[in-house]
Amino acid sequence: MTNSYDQANELEKAIRESAEYRTLRKAYEAVNADPQAKQMFENFRRIQLNLQKKQMMGEPITDEEGKKAEQSLQIIGSYPAIAALMAAEQRMSLLITDLNRIITKPLEELYGTGWV
Amino acid sequence: MTNSYDQANELEKAIRESAEYRTLRKAYEAVNADPQAKQMFENFRRIQLNLQKKQMMGEPITDEEGKKAEQSLQIIGSYPAIAALMAAEQRMSLLITDLNRIITKPLEELYGTGWV
Repeated sequence: MTNSYDQANELEKAIRESAEYRTLRKAYEAVNADPQAKQMFENFRRIQLNLQKKQMMGEPITDEEGKKAEQSLQIIGSYPAIAALMAAEQRMSLLITDLNRIITKPLEELYGTGWV
Repeated sequence: MTNSYDQANELEKAIRESAEYRTLRKAYEAVNADPQAKQMFENFRRIQLNLQKKQMMGEPITDEEGKKAEQSLQIIGSYPAIAALMAAEQRMSLLITDLNRIITKPLEELYGTGWV
């Protein structure tokens, strides 16, 4: 019987060495090395998180908030470093979703897809 | 470079062989083999999920709903098979939380604990 914790540590190493993670790390460092891009990105993140929270709480999103989100998306679109970071985040997120799907198979077999 | 997918499959096997999972599987099968316990448990689950949803949406929980939840908790408390299942679920959930904490370390290093 192999130990789950040992296997999780092996998986952690594999993730750390993956192309997805190395690309993400570089993209993240590139944005952080550019103060203006960093600020734009953090601003964009904050706006997005705020909208997500409102949607989850069922609160309406005002026209002004919608416009602000659109504007911030346009602004960050002109920063190639940020576009690269967002693409890298999306690929990383897909990998994590895939890995989670594999790992939670035993639970899915018991509960169907309803396991939270 | 080891492959993340291979490692995830190894971890999946380890979880399947873990004491936590085997205990959970047995507890789950015991409840499912008892139609009355199964129905009680499903009823309890439904009430709990409903309350959770309301809380997430910021909706108020009525006195009646609170009482219903308490009653269903008392009823299932008299089914040892259900108590065993809930304990097994809790231990499994702790294991999964631990494993996730290990696996997401690389991301936490980049983003702090804010990775969603």
